This record gives sequence, C-alpha cells and structure tokens, in this order.
Amino acid sequence: MAPHAITRRAPLATDVEIDVLYCGVCHSDLHQARDEWHEFAPTAYPCVPGHEIVGRVTKVGKDVKKFKAGDYAAVGCMVDSCRTCPSCTRGLEQYCVHFPTFTYNGQDKHSGSVTYGGYSERIVVDEAFTLKVSETANLAATAPLLCAGITTYSPLRHWGVGPGQKVGIVGLGGLGHMGVKFARAFGAHVVLFTTSPSKIEDGKRLGAHEVVVSKDAGAMKAHASSFDFVLDAVSADHDINAYLSLLKLDGTLCLVGAPEKPLPVAAFNLLLPRRSFAGSGIGGVAETQEMLDFCAERGIASDVEVIPIQKINEAYDRLLKGDVKYRFVIDMASIKQ
Amino acid sequence: MAPHAITRRAPLATDVEIDVLYCGVCHSDLHQARDEWHEFAPTAYPCVPGHEIVGRVTKVGKDVKKFKAGDYAAVGCMVDSCRTCPSCTRGLEQYCVHFPTFTYNGQDKHSGSVTYGGYSERIVVDEAFTLKVSETANLAATAPLLCAGITTYSPLRHWGVGPGQKVGIVGLGGLGHMGVKFARAFGAHVVLFTTSPSKIEDGKRLGAHEVVVSKDAGAMKAHASSFDFVLDAVSADHDINAYLSLLKLDGTLCLVGAPEKPLPVAAFNLLLPRRSFAGSGIGGVAETQEMLDFCAERGIASDVEVIPIQKINEAYDRLLKGDVKYRFVIDMASIKQ
Repeated sequence: MAPHAITRRAPLATDVEIDVLYCGVCHSDLHQARDEWHEFAPTAYPCVPGHEIVGRVTKVGKDVKKFKAGDYAAVGCMVDSCRTCPSCTRGLEQYCVHFPTFTYNGQDKHSGSVTYGGYSERIVVDEAFTLKVSETANLAATAPLLCAGITTYSPLRHWGVGPGQKVGIVGLGGLGHMGVKFARAFGAHVVLFTTSPSKIEDGKRLGAHEVVVSKDAGAMKAHASSFDFVLDAVSADHDINAYLSLLKLDGTLCLVGAPEKPLPVAAFNLLLPRRSFAGSGIGGVAETQEMLDFCAERGIASDVEVIPIQKINEAYDRLLKGDVKYRFVIDMASIKQ
Repeated sequence: MAPHAITRRAPLATDVEIDVLYCGVCHSDLHQARDEWHEFAPTAYPCVPGHEIVGRVTKVGKDVKKFKAGDYAAVGCMVDSCRTCPSCTRGLEQYCVHFPTFTYNGQDKHSGSVTYGGYSERIVVDEAFTLKVSETANLAATAPLLCAGITTYSPLRHWGVGPGQKVGIVGLGGLGHMGVKFARAFGAHVVLFTTSPSKIEDGKRLGAHEVVVSKDAGAMKAHASSFDFVLDAVSADHDINAYLSLLKLDGTLCLVGAPEKPLPVAAFNLLLPRRSFAGSGIGGVAETQEMLDFCAERGIASDVEVIPIQKINEAYDRLLKGDVKYRFVIDMASIKQ
C-alpha cells in the first residue's frame, strides 16, 4: 500500500463532506486490497480501503437536514443503495436486491467510477448513509463499531439473544471481541471459544462468563447440544461441524466471518436435532444508528490500537498473525505528515 | 438380504401387537442395511429394516386405551423415547436429548437388545408410539407417509409454508414427491428441481407449478434469490450452493436427505443476503398423527409400487438407480409364501 492522490466530488444537495479523523482496519480491507475475494468481488485498482470511518463534518449540501459543519459523523460499509427494493424499504439496505454501493470498491452512482474508502483525508457521502456520533464518544474506539460493531450487533438482535440464553462467540478478534461485549450487554450467558489459551483472561475481562479453548475436545464435548445461538466470527478456515454440534434443538449458528474456502457441513449435524447454519452481513442504516446510540448510552466501544497511516502495511502483517487487541485504527491526522 | 427368524415380546400392559400388512422401503433402510452410516449409527447385524409400517392390531395390553384388536395401526421411525426431556415434553420425540429408540437398529428398552423393523410378520410397540390409520385409507399408499410423509410435512409446517410463498422442492424421489404434494396442499407456489428432464411431466402431475431441470444454468439463474423456502430431499452428493443461492432474504433451505459426504457451503451464500441452511429429521408422534389425519381428509397418499418381500434385493438395486415411482412398498402377505 502506498500514498496516491484521489479527488472527491463537491457536496451535492444531500451530501455531507467529512474530514476523516479515524478509520478502523477491517480484515475485509486486507482481503479486498489483496484481491482475495476475486470470485465474488474482484478488486478494481487503485483501491482505497476503509469502511469504519469517524470524522468531523466540514461542509453540507443545501438540502441536508441531519448535519451541519462541525458535527461528528460516521460512515460504515455502504454509501448508497437503490432505496426502493423490498430490502431497502425495510431498512435492510445491506441486502439491497440491486446490491448496495459499498464504501470502497463499489460503483459510485454519481460518477460511475469506483468508490474510495476511509484511508483518506476526507469523504463525501449522502446524508442518508451518514451516521450521527455522540459528542462525548471516544472517536478512535467508535470507528470499529461501523463494521465490527454492527456486524455482530445485527445478528445478535435478529435472533433475539437475551437473558436466559446460552450464547457462544467463536474467535476473539475484531468482530469476536464486539460479539462478546454485545452478547453480555444483552443479558445472555456468554461462552467464548478461542484456539489460544492466552486469550482466556482477556475473554473474561471483555465479558465472557466462560472461555473454552476449542482444541480441548473434552471441554467442547461438555458443551455439546447446549447453545441457543452461536456467533462465528472466524474468517480463517475452520471446522464448522465442531460448532454446529454445540447447538441445541432449533439453535442457530450464524457466520459473520467470510472464510475463502467453502465450509464442509455434515448433514446429520443439521438433522438431529433440527439446527440452522445461517449468515449475516453488516446491518442497515437505521440499525447502525441504533447500535451507535446503544454503545454511547452503555459506554461500549472497541478495544483499539491506534496507528499512523505509515504503519498500515505492518498492521496488515500483524493482523494476519492475530497480533492486535482488538482493532487497528488509523489516526488520519498522520496522513498530512 | 435373506429370511431369518426373530421373536417379538408378548404385549406388555401398554403394548399393541400388529400384523404388518405393508412396509415402505426407505432409502435409510438401504443405508442402514449396508452400514453406510457407520460413523453416526453403525449397523448391528442381523438387521431387520423397515419403518413405514401399516398393519392390523391383533392383540393389546391390559392398559391400552387407543387401540383394540382389528383396528388399523401404523408405526414410523421411532418406537420409544425418554418421554421426559425438554424435546419429548414438547412432542418432539425425534429430538429426544437421550436419543429416541429407533424402530430398527435401535436399543430396545425392554430387552436391551437391538430393535427389529417392519420387514417382518408382526411388531409389538407401545401405544404411545403407535398411530391410528383411517378405516378408508389405501393402506399400501399410506405406509410411506410414516417416514417420507412426515419427514417432508414437518419442516414445511415448522417453517410456515403457505399461500403467497414460493417454495422449491429439490429431487423427485420418495421424499420429494411427498414434498411437492404437501407444499401444493399448503397453498404455496411450488417449483420442483430435478436433474431428469424425464420427470417434468410427472412433477406437474404431482402438483408442481413449475419444474426446473437443475442442469440448466440459465433456468437456475432466473430463479436466483427468489424463494422463501427450499426443501432439499436429495440424499446423494450434490451442489448445495446452487440451491442456497435460490433463497431470498431470510429464506431457509432445509435438508431432509442425509448425504454421506459433508456438503461444502460458500460463506458468501449465507451472508448476502442473510439466509439459513437448516435440517429436519422426521417428526414427533403428535405431528405424525396430524399428518396422517390431514392426508386422510385431503386424499393425499404416496405413489407406490407394491412388491413381494422376495423382490427386496432387486428393489434396492432399482432404488439406487432412481428407478421407482416413487416408493416401493412390500406387501407383507408375501412373507408367508
């Protein structure tokens, strides 16, 4: 990754221009930058990643109602959608049947060219896809909520996770650590599954009632068929059957990571008892705002390591080794250095 | 497969003794007879398959209330369960957390020995696991309802299939042909997916509004992301991603066949849009009775080819070739020849 110049459009009537203050580093950024999702979403180069954006409004279009210059604002994974299909009208723009315009590597509706993400000085986004950020928020720790936060919040809400339920979170990374925080905040009994014994203590600090090292076959067996819901936040290849077998009758395992290789599922693991293997992608605009408000109210944010943009290549290497607690966030002031 | 002698217990207080009149031939019988599910349910030999049993009551225990000698009766895949666990108390004995006692290759609660199925002259079963059969039913065509029928009826009911929904049935075999009949009876728009162009006409005769030959990539693409529910009744290896991509937002694909090899699932197929890959196994006792009553009322039954027990090995060979429309049923009178 190297510096290069791009231009942003001047704000149109409903646009908000934002000085990017912080941008989170998502595993998707790395996948996209390296064209590892070639089959589903080939990368158009040059690529400017970044969809966990928090900044300050510098200018607004004449019809903008929600924002004024000086406000904090945030942008997540999408900057537009068709706004008229059955998904969009339900507030589920991420599932727009015509495909939403993703914040980077998408097709800009105005220019027709590729969209550029948040690893940049500023961004111009329609206010309908711009989120409000509390004046008192820790901005760096808020940035990862825009993807890691909403991606875990949305399925936990959709499947009704709450008190009296036993909920598993698989993997303690950027997504997983938010999953633990939210599942705990929603009142569930939370069990974290990790491959690293070194993460036991941290898992408990973040909110897990129990931490299971998934290589411990005995511990896994002790939890068989006992979970209402499991959120699988692992984007590397892993044995999905080991986690499906944790579900009790009518339990759901929801995948939020996107491993490159297909995951082999043993039929009997879904049949007896009746279980579901589902997936969920980010969240809609309204739910993202709801999540930001929930976090502001409850004092929930991401655990972050702030880096200058000059360290992004090093950060990617460390990300691949799982060497981050739990999200890199770029301090975008560094881009001017 | 060859004849051999077994003994049945004399009816206990709550037992019903049944002269087996007809027994359906399920693909599971073949899997079990050939020990093809060795990993999950190894076969104890000698094995007497058969769990689609219809017959006439010959004797009842002193505490039996629902049956008397001379009544028609049926037995499905289970002959007992713990009756006290959360699944059993909800009437979902098939998901008994202590595992139900399967009709064959199970462990008999009374003798401790292996259970023997319906390819036999008679069977003795607790009345709690014995179903009532209408006096006017076509007995041969009713037998397959006890497995193929309930296995498709239960998930279609559980996921609320009905008017206004687009429902896919994958595979036109013993299960699939019942899936088509039930989905149509429940008021859905029914699309059958088959690999065989020769089954188009039959699919429509059985109730499908449309039949898609799954090898036709264009036809498959035309149906992408449009289904509320897909019932996958294929027990051979097949490309599950082709069917997952048929589901619209929040749609469910439910597997009722049990392919030997794990099915590789592409993560993106579950994430965008949010979809579920589920499984379902047979049905509980109360729901099986409900299904039999529904069929009697609506005149629904299986399309069968009646064979004498002497042709069972030949029938297995033909079953593997898909050469049956759509269920073999053994006329058990032949066993005395």
